[in-house]
Amino acid sequence: MKTKSLVTIIGAGAAGIGTATALKRLGIEDIQVIDKGEIGQSFLDWNTETRFITPSFNTNGFGFPDYNAITTDTSPGNFIDKEHLSGVDYADYLQQVAHFFQIPVITNETILKIHKKEDGYLLSSEQNDYETNYLIVALGDVAYPDVDKVIGSKHGIFYTNLGDYTHLKDSSVYSIIGGNESGFDAAIQLARRGKRSIIYTHTAGIDSESSDPSQSLSLYTKGRYRKYADLITIHSGVKIKEITPFEQSYYLTTDDGTVFMSETPPILATGFSNVKSPLIKDFFDVKGNRAVLNEWDESTLSPNLFMVGSQVEHEGVILCFIYKYRQRFAFIANEIASREGISIDEAELQLYKDYQMFLNDLSCCETDCAC
Amino acid sequence: MKTKSLVTIIGAGAAGIGTATALKRLGIEDIQVIDKGEIGQSFLDWNTETRFITPSFNTNGFGFPDYNAITTDTSPGNFIDKEHLSGVDYADYLQQVAHFFQIPVITNETILKIHKKEDGYLLSSEQNDYETNYLIVALGDVAYPDVDKVIGSKHGIFYTNLGDYTHLKDSSVYSIIGGNESGFDAAIQLARRGKRSIIYTHTAGIDSESSDPSQSLSLYTKGRYRKYADLITIHSGVKIKEITPFEQSYYLTTDDGTVFMSETPPILATGFSNVKSPLIKDFFDVKGNRAVLNEWDESTLSPNLFMVGSQVEHEGVILCFIYKYRQRFAFIANEIASREGISIDEAELQLYKDYQMFLNDLSCCETDCAC
Repeated sequence: MKTKSLVTIIGAGAAGIGTATALKRLGIEDIQVIDKGEIGQSFLDWNTETRFITPSFNTNGFGFPDYNAITTDTSPGNFIDKEHLSGVDYADYLQQVAHFFQIPVITNETILKIHKKEDGYLLSSEQNDYETNYLIVALGDVAYPDVDKVIGSKHGIFYTNLGDYTHLKDSSVYSIIGGNESGFDAAIQLARRGKRSIIYTHTAGIDSESSDPSQSLSLYTKGRYRKYADLITIHSGVKIKEITPFEQSYYLTTDDGTVFMSETPPILATGFSNVKSPLIKDFFDVKGNRAVLNEWDESTLSPNLFMVGSQVEHEGVILCFIYKYRQRFAFIANEIASREGISIDEAELQLYKDYQMFLNDLSCCETDCAC
Repeated sequence: MKTKSLVTIIGAGAAGIGTATALKRLGIEDIQVIDKGEIGQSFLDWNTETRFITPSFNTNGFGFPDYNAITTDTSPGNFIDKEHLSGVDYADYLQQVAHFFQIPVITNETILKIHKKEDGYLLSSEQNDYETNYLIVALGDVAYPDVDKVIGSKHGIFYTNLGDYTHLKDSSVYSIIGGNESGFDAAIQLARRGKRSIIYTHTAGIDSESSDPSQSLSLYTKGRYRKYADLITIHSGVKIKEITPFEQSYYLTTDDGTVFMSETPPILATGFSNVKSPLIKDFFDVKGNRAVLNEWDESTLSPNLFMVGSQVEHEGVILCFIYKYRQRFAFIANEIASREGISIDEAELQLYKDYQMFLNDLSCCETDCAC
C-alpha cells in the first residue's frame, strides 16, 4: 500500500486532531492523520489520577472556547461534564471531534522512518509508504521524557510511568526530581495516599513570580498542594545531576557535589522533549531541548515540515497549554493554503479569529498583571 | 455638601468598579462611585464557604482575561493565588483594582432617594445631595433576594443569610427551595457537615441540557454535587408556592396542592432581583423579575440611566456571569462618550475589544456545542 496526500499529520492527539480539523474546515481536504496508537493515545496513557490543570468551562457562546477545546464550537468540559478532565475523558472528547469533523485517521500505524524527497516527504511503516507534500509533526509529550540531563536516570522512574501509583513500594519518604507541574502532581498523589515526599528542584514553580501559567504552578496545583503541604518538602536551589544505586538505596548527587539519600527509586519529573524522537530529530535544528522553528512554526532545516503542540516555543513565548498552541492550527492551515494557492473558506477562518484561535503575532503575548 | 459629576455609579462591586475603570480608561474622568458599604461589600457578605463557580485562570497574555477579571490587565486568580475565589478574596481584588486605577469611591454612603431632573438625576443621602447627568445602577445580587413568588417566605431563611452555617440547628433533613447554583451550594455545604437535604425545584440545573452555564449547573458545582450525591435528594418538577409554620415544623405547599413537611425553616434559594430595590424600581419597566433595557442597557423609562451587572438580560442572552457582563462596561462608556461628544482613547477601546471585553452585538451569543 502506498498512499499520497497533500498534508500528513503524525500524531492523533490534541494538536494533531486540532490541526486536521482546522485544515478541513478551511477547505484543505486532502489530509490524513497517522498515529501509532489510538486517537488520544497519549491521554489514554496518562497516570490514572492526573487531571488537566487548565479548568474547563464553556464560554464558547461569548467568543472564547473552553480552554481545553481544540475547535471553536466544542467544549470538552461541557461534553464530559467535568471541570478538570482526566486523560481518558479527554481522549473521549478527541475521538468525538475526529468523528464529528470526519477526520481521516489511520490508527495503530507506526511510522519507522521519514525520508526527505524533492517535493515533500515519504513516511514508511512496516507495511506501508505514505507520500506527502506537507508534513506536520504533532508528537505529544508523554512518550518523550527528557531525562538526558540526569546521569543514571534509568535507576529512577519517570513521572509518566507512575500509572495508578499502586506499584510503588511502601516508603516513608519519596524523592522527586523536578519542581514543576509533574513533580508537584506526583507529590500530591503520593500525599493523598499518606506518603511523604521531597521535591528536589532548581527553581520551584510554586515560588515563581511570573503570572504566565507556563512558568509558574497553576492555581489548581497550588490549591491541591496547600492541602498536603505538611507531607511535601520542597528542596529548592538544587540540581540533581546523577542517580547512583547503593545497596538497597540511591544516592542523588547535585551539581555542586552534595549527596542526598533516597530509600526508593527517585521519581523523575524533568520535563519532555519530542525532538528526542529518533523519527524526527534529524529534521530540526535543536536549541536546548526544543526544536528551532521559523515564524510559521516550520523547521528551519526542512521546508514544509511544521510542528504543532505543546513543544512549540518561540523566544519568550511558551505555547505549552492547549489554549495557547491551538491558536496556531488555523495559522498553519492558512499558510499551507497560501503556498498551494488554495482559496480557503474565509468565513471559517474568521470564526477561528473571532474565537481567539488564530494567533499571527507572537509578540503580543504579555502576561504581566496590574493586580 | 452637594457634589456634581457627569457620571455616577451606584454600587462599588464588580460591575460598578469595572464600569468606572472602563469610563476612566477611555477618558471620561468626571465620575464617582457611591456604595452603602465598602468596596466589594456584597462579596464581603457572601456566605463564608461560598466560592466563585467560574474558575480563575490567567490567560490574559493570550488576549482573554481571567473569567473573573473586570479589566483587561488584571487576574484575580493570579492576584489571590486561587482557582475558586471566596467573597473576601474577590473584595480584596476589587479594592486593589479601584486603588490602582484611582477610581473615586464614596463608601458607607446610603442613597435614600433618586430624583429625576431635566438633565439628569439627583441622588440624596441623609447628609448629601449628588447631581449627575448619567446614572449607572450597579446594584449586586446578594442584597436583593427574590422571594415574592413564595407566600410566607418570611418563615424560611434566605440563602445569602446562611453565613457560616453554624447557627443551623441540628436536623436530619433540611429543605431547600430552588435547584440552581445557590440551592445546590447550600445542599453541598450542608452535606459537608454530614447533613442531608432535599432540594425542591421546578427545573433543576443539574438536568439542564443547555451548554450555557447561565442555564445549567456549573462544572464546579456538578463535581462537588457528585461527591455528596448520597446526602442530597432532588425533588424535581415541583413548585413550592407557600410556607406555613405548623407547631415545630413547616408545611411546604406546591402549586398543585401537594404538601411536604419540613422539620426546619426551609432554605430559600429562589434567585435575586435588584429591581426589587425601592431606590430604583420606579425608574424601570419590569418584566418578570428583570428590568427592561434598551440596546444600550438603558432603562426604557428613564433616559441616561443604565444598568450593569448580573441582572442585565436581553431576550435569550443572560449576562449573569462576570465574563459576560464585563463586556458591556466599555460599551456603555463608549455610548456615554458619544452622547457627550467626548473623544475617547481609541487605543484603550481597542484593548477592550482585543480582550473580548466589548460586546456590541448580543445576537452573537450562541452556546450550542458540537461536542
